[in-house]
Amino acid sequence: MDFEKLASLYKNELLDSVLPFWLEHSQDHEYGGYFTCLDREGKVFDTDKFIWLQCREVWMFSMLYNKVEKRKEWLDCAVQGGEFLKKYGHDGNYNWYFSLDRSGRPLVEPYNIFSYTFATMAFGQLSLATGNQEYADIAKKTFDIILSKVDNPKGKWNKLHPGTRNLKNFALPMILCNLALEIEHLLDETYLRETMDTCIHEVMEVFYRPELGGIIVENVDIDGNLVDCFEGRQVTPGHAIEAMWFIMDLGKRLNRPELIEKAKETTLTMLNYGWDKQYGGIYYFMDRNSCPPQQLEWDQKLWWVHIETLISLLKGYQLTGDKRCLEWFEKVHDYTWEHFKDKEYLEWYGYLNRRGEVLLPLKGGKWKGCFHVPRGLYQCWKTLEEIKNIVS
Amino acid sequence: MDFEKLASLYKNELLDSVLPFWLEHSQDHEYGGYFTCLDREGKVFDTDKFIWLQCREVWMFSMLYNKVEKRKEWLDCAVQGGEFLKKYGHDGNYNWYFSLDRSGRPLVEPYNIFSYTFATMAFGQLSLATGNQEYADIAKKTFDIILSKVDNPKGKWNKLHPGTRNLKNFALPMILCNLALEIEHLLDETYLRETMDTCIHEVMEVFYRPELGGIIVENVDIDGNLVDCFEGRQVTPGHAIEAMWFIMDLGKRLNRPELIEKAKETTLTMLNYGWDKQYGGIYYFMDRNSCPPQQLEWDQKLWWVHIETLISLLKGYQLTGDKRCLEWFEKVHDYTWEHFKDKEYLEWYGYLNRRGEVLLPLKGGKWKGCFHVPRGLYQCWKTLEEIKNIVS
Repeated sequence: MDFEKLASLYKNELLDSVLPFWLEHSQDHEYGGYFTCLDREGKVFDTDKFIWLQCREVWMFSMLYNKVEKRKEWLDCAVQGGEFLKKYGHDGNYNWYFSLDRSGRPLVEPYNIFSYTFATMAFGQLSLATGNQEYADIAKKTFDIILSKVDNPKGKWNKLHPGTRNLKNFALPMILCNLALEIEHLLDETYLRETMDTCIHEVMEVFYRPELGGIIVENVDIDGNLVDCFEGRQVTPGHAIEAMWFIMDLGKRLNRPELIEKAKETTLTMLNYGWDKQYGGIYYFMDRNSCPPQQLEWDQKLWWVHIETLISLLKGYQLTGDKRCLEWFEKVHDYTWEHFKDKEYLEWYGYLNRRGEVLLPLKGGKWKGCFHVPRGLYQCWKTLEEIKNIVS
Repeated sequence: MDFEKLASLYKNELLDSVLPFWLEHSQDHEYGGYFTCLDREGKVFDTDKFIWLQCREVWMFSMLYNKVEKRKEWLDCAVQGGEFLKKYGHDGNYNWYFSLDRSGRPLVEPYNIFSYTFATMAFGQLSLATGNQEYADIAKKTFDIILSKVDNPKGKWNKLHPGTRNLKNFALPMILCNLALEIEHLLDETYLRETMDTCIHEVMEVFYRPELGGIIVENVDIDGNLVDCFEGRQVTPGHAIEAMWFIMDLGKRLNRPELIEKAKETTLTMLNYGWDKQYGGIYYFMDRNSCPPQQLEWDQKLWWVHIETLISLLKGYQLTGDKRCLEWFEKVHDYTWEHFKDKEYLEWYGYLNRRGEVLLPLKGGKWKGCFHVPRGLYQCWKTLEEIKNIVS
């Protein structure tokens, strides 16, 4: 495999196609913040502002500024989004709304904990990019609120009747694995270690199930037991695989090769489990008992699932040398570039049907923004460069 | 068209295939109530009890007992479900949960107004079948609670921030059109007329949009204006078409032929709008500006959409004689019987992909129960018999 050529491919796609798309089409120069509902060519089809995606774009451009190059247009883009969020994104007490209208008026209440986690990421990176203490304080305050909500993330909007079947979900500990490293500069060492240990334990010892052949489930009860209900049977391969590169990053940071090894093995297990043997690509949702999943979109092929898988495979190869990672990488890379990349216009498609045909021609929407594609291209580019340097 | 043969087809499918499936497989003889998560052959794959579907099955067997034949097994089936619901379905004050576990313990809180509407339907019909005043009281009390919640159906679980963009949804007035006739025997005449008038106005003058060529939208603002956001652009053809036979029933009841005419025209408009010209079948969700809809399942073909359409077309033909209804009926009938009916096992499939291939092999689940298929078969059977009697 020509790692040098591959590294250039990922780098150029990031710098010459994807970032120009968002810089050009997503910035709202009138009200601030970003449009994310963009059609195939980049035209805005909806002006609502979803906090997940606002935060992620602030994070993206801050991170690139911090790690790739000190480009003024990247910093300006990040700062204008950060200022919009600072002013309108929360209720005054860092309770982050789910969405706003174009001008910043709140549309949907702060019921979603991931609005908070992405706000923390955004302001953590933005504080590094600008040196502005106010941004660091917002990140730190928001992170404290997240930790205070761990036991009931939805708060008063939680519709589960208490007591009958208390479930906990994989997404929060998974995201915290990544977030802990993201805002390392804002946390004291003991606190950081505790958070990391808890998240690693949850992901790799509670949601990871050896009795099911080493797959990761999306929900267990509060005592960590499997539950036989729709949520308890749910498996989301892309989610589990994405978490594995967060774990590999933590394994590297904490110098725990056994953790990296297990994350690499789990990546391969989940990929084999989630791969559509008939049409190729990775399923969105599955049921661990092969019952019909409740999500009607279960067999669709989503951009983030495939891009996150490429990252985990490359990191797995880089850190363990397991050749199976490379074999799978080639297969997933081919599928991803063939089906998700738009050969005519900038940026990638997000939603394909089971056969790999475009289901929605949008480049951005309520859930797809300036995040998984550019972050994935960046991570693959950088990891391929490191592999190249070891090989050569 | 051989109406007599068609009437038999619908009747026999109801009595010989669909009802036996539910009588045999869905009754929980141990705890009471019904299993609805049933695989292709009828095997239970999940034991949770969803109030919508519990109520609908009580309604279905009560209605058949009231209108078709006094079969003891139908009444027994309805009564045992009704008793289960009376005991476990609500919080003691007729606030109806969304779901229960198998034994009846509440799982999901009473956030969903349609749990209430289907409870009203269920106990209304069950009171007619049994003459039991207690059931009538439950229906009446629940109906009063519904009317008290019309302005904020989700109550404290409403996640919309008040004031920025207050939307109202088509589903509640639409269901109330049907419900008013369902529980006519429990309401006094003035009250009934007011409810009917309000619902007809909402459906046919607020959500119906002449400026969009006579389609029905799913959401408007509280003043009745169109809104350019995901919810405000949403069109759900099956929903609109289902509402049209409720309106035709009301038109008949109130002796308003102009209402019937408009409902028939709207059925044809919506069907033409929602028909998939490439693969056949009716889309699940659309966007009135042809933007990408937010529902990833937008292009799927669902059982209830097609079955409700058959009813509206037959009633439209019966009540107006418009030949276009019959032409469309033939087309939708062929599609429906070809794709939804399982040729090997009892009952029908619920979920097909855009191409009409089975997406989920279940016969019942969290949303599909003993309702749209048998109600549709019953309605088509009876309407075809009436048409036959006019023609012959």
